[in-house]
Amino acid sequence: MNIFVLNSGGSSLKYKLIEMNEKKVLAKGICEKIGEPESVLKQTTYLNNDEYSQTICKKIDHKEAFKYIKSALTDRNHGIIKSFDEVSAVGHRVVQGGEYFKKPAIIDDDVITKIGMLSELAPLHNPVHLSGILACRELLDEKIPQVAVFDTSFYSDIPEKAYIFPIPYKYYEKYHVRKYGFHGTSHKYVSNRVYSATKTRKNNLKIISCHLGNGSSITAISNGKAVDTSMGLTPLGGIIMGTRSGSIDPSVVLHIAAKENMGVKEMNKMLNKESGLLGISQISGDDREIIKAENNGDKLASLAHKIMVYQISQYIGAYNVILQGFDTLIFTGGIGENQPVHRKNICKKLEFLGVYIDDYLNETAVSGKEMKISKNDSKIDVWVIPTNEEMEIAEETADLLGF
Amino acid sequence: MNIFVLNSGGSSLKYKLIEMNEKKVLAKGICEKIGEPESVLKQTTYLNNDEYSQTICKKIDHKEAFKYIKSALTDRNHGIIKSFDEVSAVGHRVVQGGEYFKKPAIIDDDVITKIGMLSELAPLHNPVHLSGILACRELLDEKIPQVAVFDTSFYSDIPEKAYIFPIPYKYYEKYHVRKYGFHGTSHKYVSNRVYSATKTRKNNLKIISCHLGNGSSITAISNGKAVDTSMGLTPLGGIIMGTRSGSIDPSVVLHIAAKENMGVKEMNKMLNKESGLLGISQISGDDREIIKAENNGDKLASLAHKIMVYQISQYIGAYNVILQGFDTLIFTGGIGENQPVHRKNICKKLEFLGVYIDDYLNETAVSGKEMKISKNDSKIDVWVIPTNEEMEIAEETADLLGF
Repeated sequence: MNIFVLNSGGSSLKYKLIEMNEKKVLAKGICEKIGEPESVLKQTTYLNNDEYSQTICKKIDHKEAFKYIKSALTDRNHGIIKSFDEVSAVGHRVVQGGEYFKKPAIIDDDVITKIGMLSELAPLHNPVHLSGILACRELLDEKIPQVAVFDTSFYSDIPEKAYIFPIPYKYYEKYHVRKYGFHGTSHKYVSNRVYSATKTRKNNLKIISCHLGNGSSITAISNGKAVDTSMGLTPLGGIIMGTRSGSIDPSVVLHIAAKENMGVKEMNKMLNKESGLLGISQISGDDREIIKAENNGDKLASLAHKIMVYQISQYIGAYNVILQGFDTLIFTGGIGENQPVHRKNICKKLEFLGVYIDDYLNETAVSGKEMKISKNDSKIDVWVIPTNEEMEIAEETADLLGF
Repeated sequence: MNIFVLNSGGSSLKYKLIEMNEKKVLAKGICEKIGEPESVLKQTTYLNNDEYSQTICKKIDHKEAFKYIKSALTDRNHGIIKSFDEVSAVGHRVVQGGEYFKKPAIIDDDVITKIGMLSELAPLHNPVHLSGILACRELLDEKIPQVAVFDTSFYSDIPEKAYIFPIPYKYYEKYHVRKYGFHGTSHKYVSNRVYSATKTRKNNLKIISCHLGNGSSITAISNGKAVDTSMGLTPLGGIIMGTRSGSIDPSVVLHIAAKENMGVKEMNKMLNKESGLLGISQISGDDREIIKAENNGDKLASLAHKIMVYQISQYIGAYNVILQGFDTLIFTGGIGENQPVHRKNICKKLEFLGVYIDDYLNETAVSGKEMKISKNDSKIDVWVIPTNEEMEIAEETADLLGF
C-alpha cells in the first residue's frame, strides 16, 4: 500500500512516495522554482536507483508542476509506478492548523475552507499548501482520499499558561494570537522513534527534543504529548535560528523600527531573513559556513555559535523545570543530526544534570544515523534521530484512514 | 556622616537621607505630580517620628520641587537637619549607564554629557535623572560631591553571548542595541545582604535573585558578579510584569501592529502599559488586585498568575544551567517580599531540584522581614530580602568617595 506525501511550498513541491507495509521510500523528488521562467524537477527512485532531472522551460504554477511530478512518477523509464491507481492516499503537510485541527483531517470542502481561513496566521504557508491540495484534487481520481497533517496538531493539548502571550487578552479573542508551535510532525516522529528503539511505553519518558536546522525549535514531551515548545505564533519565536531572531525583548524591535523608520514589512524581513546566525556572524545563515569561518578564527562566527549553544542550553534548563526532570534528550534536524560539535557543547553545559555523552559515538552520529550517543552511566539518554516528516505524515494519513 | 539619595522620576522626586555609620534612614520622602497643577510632598522623619505632608498649589518643575524638599528636610518643626551642610554627599539613581559607566561616577560636566547622550536608550529615565542632578548642582553648595549610581553597572561584566541579541550585528555597532539589564542596584543589595547574613565569601555562592514588583527581573549571580539577567535593552524584556509583556515572539508584535495599524508609539504603550498581568487579567497591573480576583474565582486572574509562576520557574531553570547549579534563591521587590503564595507556587516547581521551603516561615516573611524561608534540609537556601536601593546607592556613593 503506497502513500504519496506532498509538501507544497511557495515556489516548490516536495514529495515522497512511501510503501507503507515495509515503510520504504519508493521515490522522492522536488519541483523547484515554480513561478519563475524556468522550473526544475528532480526525482530519485530507489528500487531502480534512478536519478532523474528535468528542466521545464516555461513559467508554471503549482498545478502544472504537479502534472510534471505525476508524469515523472509514472514515466516508463524513470518512474516507479504505472499509474496513480497504485496510490492509496495522499498526505499533505499543512503548517498552520490553528485551533480547528487538533489532529489530521480528511480533506473536504470544509477543511479546505478552514485551511484558507487560517492563511491569515500563516500567509507564507497555508495558501501554497492549498495550491498543492487543489492540484491533487483536480488531477487525481477523487477515489484517492487526501489527508491534511498539521505541524501544529502535536501542540493542541499544551496548557493555556504555555500558549497565552502576556499581552492584552483581546488579541487572543480577536485574532487568535497565541503560541501554536511548529515542527510538530518532526518532534512527534523522533520521539516515536525513541519509544520504538527503547521499547518504552510513552508515559515512561520525559523528553526534550531539539530540532535544529535552518529553523529550530525545542519541545518538551511527557506521556507522549507535547507540553510546551519554543516557537510561537509563527516559526519566528523561540531560539536563535539560521536567519531568524527567535523570541526577544520587544523594545529591541520597536527601537530599531523607530531609528530606521521601518514598517511591519521591513521588520518582518529583518527578523526572519537577516537575523539569527546570519545577523550576528554577517557571513551566512548556513551553519556549515559559520563553522568554517569559526575554524578560521572569525570572532563573530564564534559568537553566533556561543549564543546558539547558550540559548539552547537555557531552554533545556527551562524545560527541565516544566517536565520536573527529564530522561531523554533528542537531537534532530540538519544541524542536530550532523554537527557533533554543537551537540558536544550543549551537552557539556548539561553535565551537572547528569548528561554524559560518548565523544566517539557523538562524532560518528552523522549522515542519517539513528543512535544513542550518551554513555551507559548517563542519567539522561541522548539520542540523534534523523527526522522524517514525510514518513510521519504517511503514517498519520494511514492511521486516520484506517489502513 | 549623612548621604542624601535622590531618585528622580518623570513626575516625582523620591529621596532618603541616610546616616552612614549606623546605616540608619533619617528621613524619606517623595514629591509627586511634578508638572501638574498641584504637587504633593510627603516626608517621614524617623528620629522624631514625624509624618509631614504639603500640598503645593502651583505647577512646579524638578528644580522647584527640590527646593521644597530642601525646605522640608531643614524645616524647624518637621525637618531632621539644620542645613545641607550636614550632608556629606548626594547619590543619584540613574537607570541607564550604557557602556560608559561600569561603576558609579562622581558627577562632573563630562558625566552629565554622557548621561544625556544615553537618553536615547532610556528616554523616560535619563532626561529626568538629569533634571534632578542639575537641580542639586544649582541649589546645593558645590563642595557637596554628587555621585551617579547606575542600574546597569551591575551587569557591565556579563558575557557577550548574554548581551548580544540575535539580530543584525550592525544595530549593536550603530545604536548600541544590546542587553543592559536593570534593577542592578536591587539585585546587588539583596545578594550582599545574603553574603552578610551567611558570612559567606562571595565566591562561594551561586545565586538566582528574583526582583518581583511592578517591574520584575531575574538575575544570575556568581562570584558576586551578575552573569545574566532577564531585562534587556529597556526594562520591557524578560518575564511578565504588572503591565509589561516581557520578552516575546516578535511576530506577535508585528502581527498585531499590522492588524491594528499601530505605529511604534502605540505598540510601546500597549507592551509597556497594557500587557502583562493587566493584559491577561483585564483587571489590574497591581498583583494585590489580581490575587483578590483570583480568590473570588476569576479565571483570567488565575491564568495571569499561572503564567507568571510558569515563566519565573522557567527562568530559574535556565539560570540553573547558566550557573551550573545554584545554592541560593532570593525573593525581593513588592511582590517578592509580600506574596507568600507566589513564592510557594514557584518553589513547588523547584522541589525536584532540592528546593524545600518551610510554609510557616514563608507565610511570616512579609512586611519588610529579612529571613531565610527554606527548610534546613533544603539543598538550596531560599531567602526573602526586602530591597533597599537607596541604601545601596548611599553605600556605593560613600565607597567611591572614600568615606
